[in-house]
Amino acid sequence: MPTVLGQNQYGKAETRVVRVTRDGPVHHIRDLSVSIALSGTMDEVHLSGSNARVLPTDTTKNTVFAFAKEYGVASPEEFAARLARHFVTGQESIRTARVRVEEYAWDRIPTPGPAGHSFVRRGRETRTAQVTFDGAGGRWQVLSGLKGLTVMNTTDSEFHGYVKDRYTTLPETRDRILATEVNACWRHAWDGGDGEGGGGDGVGDGAAPPDWDGSWERTRGHLLAAFAETYSLSLQQTLYAMGSRAVEHGPGIDEIRLSLPNKHHFLADLKPFGLGNDNEVYYAADRPYGLIEATVLRDGAEAAVPQELTNLP
Amino acid sequence: MPTVLGQNQYGKAETRVVRVTRDGPVHHIRDLSVSIALSGTMDEVHLSGSNARVLPTDTTKNTVFAFAKEYGVASPEEFAARLARHFVTGQESIRTARVRVEEYAWDRIPTPGPAGHSFVRRGRETRTAQVTFDGAGGRWQVLSGLKGLTVMNTTDSEFHGYVKDRYTTLPETRDRILATEVNACWRHAWDGGDGEGGGGDGVGDGAAPPDWDGSWERTRGHLLAAFAETYSLSLQQTLYAMGSRAVEHGPGIDEIRLSLPNKHHFLADLKPFGLGNDNEVYYAADRPYGLIEATVLRDGAEAAVPQELTNLP
Amino acid sequence: MPTVLGQNQYGKAETRVVRVTRDGPVHHIRDLSVSIALSGTMDEVHLSGSNARVLPTDTTKNTVFAFAKEYGVASPEEFAARLARHFVTGQESIRTARVRVEEYAWDRIPTPGPAGHSFVRRGRETRTAQVTFDGAGGRWQVLSGLKGLTVMNTTDSEFHGYVKDRYTTLPETRDRILATEVNACWRHAWDGGDGEGGGGDGVGDGAAPPDWDGSWERTRGHLLAAFAETYSLSLQQTLYAMGSRAVEHGPGIDEIRLSLPNKHHFLADLKPFGLGNDNEVYYAADRPYGLIEATVLRDGAEAAVPQELTNLP
Amino acid sequence: MPTVLGQNQYGKAETRVVRVTRDGPVHHIRDLSVSIALSGTMDEVHLSGSNARVLPTDTTKNTVFAFAKEYGVASPEEFAARLARHFVTGQESIRTARVRVEEYAWDRIPTPGPAGHSFVRRGRETRTAQVTFDGAGGRWQVLSGLKGLTVMNTTDSEFHGYVKDRYTTLPETRDRILATEVNACWRHAWDGGDGEGGGGDGVGDGAAPPDWDGSWERTRGHLLAAFAETYSLSLQQTLYAMGSRAVEHGPGIDEIRLSLPNKHHFLADLKPFGLGNDNEVYYAADRPYGLIEATVLRDGAEAAVPQELTNLP
Repeated sequence: MPTVLGQNQYGKAETRVVRVTRDGPVHHIRDLSVSIALSGTMDEVHLSGSNARVLPTDTTKNTVFAFAKEYGVASPEEFAARLARHFVTGQESIRTARVRVEEYAWDRIPTPGPAGHSFVRRGRETRTAQVTFDGAGGRWQVLSGLKGLTVMNTTDSEFHGYVKDRYTTLPETRDRILATEVNACWRHAWDGGDGEGGGGDGVGDGAAPPDWDGSWERTRGHLLAAFAETYSLSLQQTLYAMGSRAVEHGPGIDEIRLSLPNKHHFLADLKPFGLGNDNEVYYAADRPYGLIEATVLRDGAEAAVPQELTNLP
Repeated sequence: MPTVLGQNQYGKAETRVVRVTRDGPVHHIRDLSVSIALSGTMDEVHLSGSNARVLPTDTTKNTVFAFAKEYGVASPEEFAARLARHFVTGQESIRTARVRVEEYAWDRIPTPGPAGHSFVRRGRETRTAQVTFDGAGGRWQVLSGLKGLTVMNTTDSEFHGYVKDRYTTLPETRDRILATEVNACWRHAWDGGDGEGGGGDGVGDGAAPPDWDGSWERTRGHLLAAFAETYSLSLQQTLYAMGSRAVEHGPGIDEIRLSLPNKHHFLADLKPFGLGNDNEVYYAADRPYGLIEATVLRDGAEAAVPQELTNLP
Repeated sequence: MPTVLGQNQYGKAETRVVRVTRDGPVHHIRDLSVSIALSGTMDEVHLSGSNARVLPTDTTKNTVFAFAKEYGVASPEEFAARLARHFVTGQESIRTARVRVEEYAWDRIPTPGPAGHSFVRRGRETRTAQVTFDGAGGRWQVLSGLKGLTVMNTTDSEFHGYVKDRYTTLPETRDRILATEVNACWRHAWDGGDGEGGGGDGVGDGAAPPDWDGSWERTRGHLLAAFAETYSLSLQQTLYAMGSRAVEHGPGIDEIRLSLPNKHHFLADLKPFGLGNDNEVYYAADRPYGLIEATVLRDGAEAAVPQELTNLP
Repeated sequence: MPTVLGQNQYGKAETRVVRVTRDGPVHHIRDLSVSIALSGTMDEVHLSGSNARVLPTDTTKNTVFAFAKEYGVASPEEFAARLARHFVTGQESIRTARVRVEEYAWDRIPTPGPAGHSFVRRGRETRTAQVTFDGAGGRWQVLSGLKGLTVMNTTDSEFHGYVKDRYTTLPETRDRILATEVNACWRHAWDGGDGEGGGGDGVGDGAAPPDWDGSWERTRGHLLAAFAETYSLSLQQTLYAMGSRAVEHGPGIDEIRLSLPNKHHFLADLKPFGLGNDNEVYYAADRPYGLIEATVLRDGAEAAVPQELTNLP
């Protein structure tokens, strides 16, 4: 029985580039991991091994470093878009480019004097961006996101009134810890703008793209605030509050996908020792964990973020 | 601007269950991690926090243990299917269930005498299964797979004749190491069979399901053999050889998705020390790595395995 | 040839306990992983399997939770000391107890109103403590530390003037990135004080113990400051500057062990593309890495921190 | 208060080298991660930053690749010893060298025909070696080991008769799963032999060194057999049986350190569902875990393996 080739892509993954810019004695850094996936008319290399249409993955890696020098890294989204456009417009065989970026944040270490070249890695979460440029349609899809943002409420969370079947043993609770590690990916309405997808030497020649860094910071803030301020009857409710707040307060955001593991904190049973436990001592469990996933959309928008994108391992 | 709820699902992830069965002094084990995702009419819990239609994730965990006792674990696929059917048929609010299983393999430790209850964990790869049951259509989708299977050819791999652009510096080679870590996911043609999706107390009342364990072992064997026996001009060619062999020799397999990181082994440069290096000493690099991904389909089949399913982190 | 039993110890490792305390609507949390190792007259359990002198590891876990309730968690060191004393004084067969604690830090999420029960995990580093109580000598050894504190200087680092042998190819540099992940463990002079090791119901009845939290914060600050402010000719020089500053400015600290992986940032070679690279674009390498390890002692102190304690995997 | 420098060492860690040797169409591979730690008269580099006595860590990396070419990799121990001798005898400032090696095993993929150049990564455990050469004394210390060897007995394990205190709740059991991940490190009696520690161009000019590969395979076999064949009343008893068997049956082995996490498998509680559980369904827990550690010595030998060497993270 014969077989055929389906969707395929290739590129260099996890190129780790650090870009330093200097403002006199004050340095700025952007620290990225860049993963590139190119697709197009690539049947031959699969069927016969001919590389005549294949730009090597090593070249895509080199391009990351060269572009960091030539254009700097204004933001993960801008950098990814520039790379995506380059591959699609530079190689006839490449029709679509998807560039994923992870960014790692650093804080300044305060020092005496005007110099500013010392940094300490901040936080545990990673900022993410995925930019896809489809050369045929001239359209962009830009997804921003974060992963690994761990949060906890020590009260204002209840869980009761659920379905009980033969296998239900969980007791209801009116006060519990609610903790999760936020994995989020949101889609910007911006798609390159005027329908022609640009064609000059800039990125997106139509409507001006958003302020990517500002948008990301605001969205992260909305997610944190909604988590903290929602009196929660279920993690689903908290998820929806987070997602809808990000979309409602983010004019350029059409869709968000959230994947929230319920990091269970179980009350330690101290009764055998003659001790009470008025929500004071918890056991933090690793596995298994509840996993709550959902997409929140601006009314009228169509879902386009793949469900698997925020999947946990 | 109002928002709406899109696709959503929930359940307990990574429930670790070990099932022991005894044949006199000879024991058998199956060692699984089970992750459940349920979806259906779940708007209320997101919008108001009402759990009136929510079966707790804790219950889905309990069900895994109870089913392991009541029905045993004949195979990851069979066990996943049984769970999926249970949730969809048991709760009106649940319309679709997706059950993912990872299985960890063990070998026997040989001992004197008839007893057989000592085991050592085998291999580095993980067997995977994902079964989705759509109650509305009564249809099944069964994906089997593996991840983490690391393989290497120390010769019979070339790479040349590729596109060179301004950023290309890679030298061509006629003899290199080719190494990868196979991440594969294949879709079975079996979908429950007679169009009614079953309805009795078995799993899939239509056509009999495949021999899942036998099918998995054969497919793994085909992937290994195709990797070893293909004289490779590109990793894409090797990928296609692997995928097409799995489909052509697997009568019940309609589609396979492969994600192959090119685990680069660079020749150490020994010239500064006055030494040659005739493909003898290599540096095994971690990052970045080439990443080659493709779907191979039986002619006439439609692609249904999400591209993101075999994504590397 | 007969064998004999050497040093041995046992206990429960990685008990994850979260302690919440409430100050009206304002909550405080301490989030710990506690690992206990007990040793004493334990020959029988090894030789015959008799558990007559063995307090189960499950009990040591229970004790962690019970003590979190009964005494709270004033600091990792204080909590560890209380546990260590309990096991040594509570069981005749236990002569020495070593308690290791990892603490994970959380920041408050700012919210409107007086409530304070929302938190976000801070930073990537882990605070560590190891307290050993030797019942026979009545002496304490308290080690505080941190791991995973990642720092970078983008200039003020040189490397030249080193030994060249047949295998040396590294070019000298007058300006490079210096980055490392600080793994540090320091030993307090405090050992319980008056020579009797205490014996009442407090911890350490002799000299008052240090302010553990304050000491830890100050030491972390000194390590960061010394890293940032040292013009570095070698990572060893930076290490010594960090260690000596921590000891000189920490009156109660007699010794510090530092393990500093040199997280190499290599200048990307952009010459093939006709581009310069004036310390602007770097490739962040994972492996291999230089590893610099040393102990710094207060003059006259004897080294007691095991070299292997800060070993990287 | 002045400070002084204590023990210090430096070198390149985790150099990943793959050595291919060819026997016609049949290839052989050794796949290693090599970590080097050098110490000697290194005060100046710490105090002033002078590198005049410092061989760069980059050079130690280069030496690994060059030696793999020049001498091959007969075994991890032999390769480590050759490197250690080189650094100590080649640089006056280096007095002691410690070389750690991890080896990853590969199996052949069977193929038709005489060729043998296709491999699949075997097993989950890692073989380890640590060789220390002290130039002053001319003595060697060779430690061999393994980590990550996961084993399970589904019966023939009991746990009862233990101490009960106020915090003990664990029920006794006469039949449980016993599972662990073996982390072992054993010390060879061989120390270079005739007291002069060699001095020619071989490694160890005194007594001939053991057959390192054969010794390692036999020791691994003894550890597995003792685990499987011991009817266990406690994990300590099993540990001692494993250690003493390795030493008693390994004429050249004087000492072994074992670190055995008790990978708990708890019986799932199925009573709420009206189901029994006759040791059939278990929940495999991750954390916390019991941790049993001990040294077993040949009678008359002195302990020299650091307790921390086999520490789990």
